[in-house]
Amino acid sequence: MLFYAKVAGTLWLLPVALGDAAWETYLPPETREAACRLSHFVVENAKTARAELKRLDHPTPLRELQIEQLPEKLTAADIERLLAPLLAGHDLGLMSEAGCPAVADPGALLVRRAHEIGIPVRPLVGPSSLLLALMASGLDGQRFAFHGYLPAREPDRSKRIAELEAESARQAQTQLFIETPYRNQALLAALLQTCKPGTRLCLATDLSLESESIATHRIADWKKLATPALEKRPTVYLLLAA
Amino acid sequence: MLFYAKVAGTLWLLPVALGDAAWETYLPPETREAACRLSHFVVENAKTARAELKRLDHPTPLRELQIEQLPEKLTAADIERLLAPLLAGHDLGLMSEAGCPAVADPGALLVRRAHEIGIPVRPLVGPSSLLLALMASGLDGQRFAFHGYLPAREPDRSKRIAELEAESARQAQTQLFIETPYRNQALLAALLQTCKPGTRLCLATDLSLESESIATHRIADWKKLATPALEKRPTVYLLLAA
Repeated sequence: MLFYAKVAGTLWLLPVALGDAAWETYLPPETREAACRLSHFVVENAKTARAELKRLDHPTPLRELQIEQLPEKLTAADIERLLAPLLAGHDLGLMSEAGCPAVADPGALLVRRAHEIGIPVRPLVGPSSLLLALMASGLDGQRFAFHGYLPAREPDRSKRIAELEAESARQAQTQLFIETPYRNQALLAALLQTCKPGTRLCLATDLSLESESIATHRIADWKKLATPALEKRPTVYLLLAA
Repeated sequence: MLFYAKVAGTLWLLPVALGDAAWETYLPPETREAACRLSHFVVENAKTARAELKRLDHPTPLRELQIEQLPEKLTAADIERLLAPLLAGHDLGLMSEAGCPAVADPGALLVRRAHEIGIPVRPLVGPSSLLLALMASGLDGQRFAFHGYLPAREPDRSKRIAELEAESARQAQTQLFIETPYRNQALLAALLQTCKPGTRLCLATDLSLESESIATHRIADWKKLATPALEKRPTVYLLLAA
C-alpha cells in the first residue's frame, strides 16, 4: 500500500554507545546534535536510553522527554501508536540498547512502516559492533553474512557451526554471529572442537571500549593459546574457512 | 604461524567520508584526533586520502606525511613492505577511498597479516554505506548478507538476482549488494523485471550526504512509481523476499 503522510516529522536513527564511554569516542558531533534537538524517542530499553541522553548532555530535563519503550512483541497497533508523533509533525528518534537501531536489534518493523506511509528516514553515523569487528578481523569484507545468535544447546550448536563453516568455504564468505556473554566460553569451546584446523576465527570483544580486545587466528593456533577471558564481555565471532 | 613483534606500533583503521561533507557530520572527534596524530598511512587511493586528511585539518603539511597506496594486486612482499613502519615502532593508519577500510574494500589482507605477527589492530567509528543502508531500510537487520557486485551482464545478472531472492526467502535474510553508479539504472530495471511482486527492495543513495535518499517499497509498488534518479549516485541495494 502506498499512502503518503501530508505533514510528517522525520524518523532519526540514532546509534548509541556500546558501553560506558564519552560520546566523543563514538559519535560524530552531528549525531549528538540531532539527538539533542529531539523530544520524542522510541527506544529498546528506557533505562539505557536515559543514560545515553545524559551522556549526550541533552538540554531538556529527561523527565520532560517523551520516551516510549518498544514492546517485546510488536503488534501492528503498537507500530501505529509509536509512529503517531511523526504523523502529528514531530521528529522522532529511534535508539536501541547499544549500537545501531534496527541492526541485530528490534525496531526494523517501525522503520519499514515509516517507509510505507512516506515518512522520511535518516540514519546517522555511530558505532556498530558488527562493523567494527568485520573491519578489524582481517577476514573477507567483500562477502559476509550475519546470523544473529546460534542455538544455545548441543548438539544443535555444533551442527550449526559446521553448517556455517561449510557455507563459508562454499561461498568464500565471512560468517558473523553473537552470543549472550555468559555463554561465550561454551561457544568458544564448541568452535575449537568443531571447526577445521585451517579455519580462521576472530574474537572481537568490548569493541570501542578501553578494554577492547581483537584477535584473529587459525583454529589450530587458538588451541595452543591460553583461553581468552571472555566472561560477561560482549563478543562478536567471525569465521572464514580456508 | 604465531610470531610476535617485540616493538610494534598500532594499526588504526580509519573510516573516511562517503562524499564531500564536513567531518563533524560523519566522524567522532576521537577518530579525527587519531588520524591527526599519525604520520604513516596506507591508503586505497592517495588522492582521496589527501583530500580526507585536508578535511580533517591534519596538523602536518601533507607532503611530509608518508602515504603509501595499496597496489591493485597485493603480493606477500607488498604486505611486508606496507607493514614495515609498524615493525619499526610507528603507528599506521589504513584508509579506504570511502567508508570503512577492509569492508567491501581492499586492505583486509593487511589486517590479517597484522594479526599473524601480533600487531594491535584498532578499528575506529565512522561511516559505512552498508550499515547506514541496513539501518534505514526497515528490512531484516537480524539476518543479512553482503554480496559485493552482481554480474554486470545479462543473463548472468538476472540469474544472480533470482538466486539472491530465493536465498532471501529460504533464510529470511536481507540481501545487500552494490553496483558501479553508471550501471544503476540497468540493475534497477533487472530487479523490477526479475523479482516477485511482494519482495521488498530498498534503494539507499548518497548516504550521509545532503542529497541522501532512501526508499523501501515492494516490487509491485516500485513499478508504479517514477524511476528514481540514480545516475552516477552511489547506491546500496537491499532486498528481502516476502
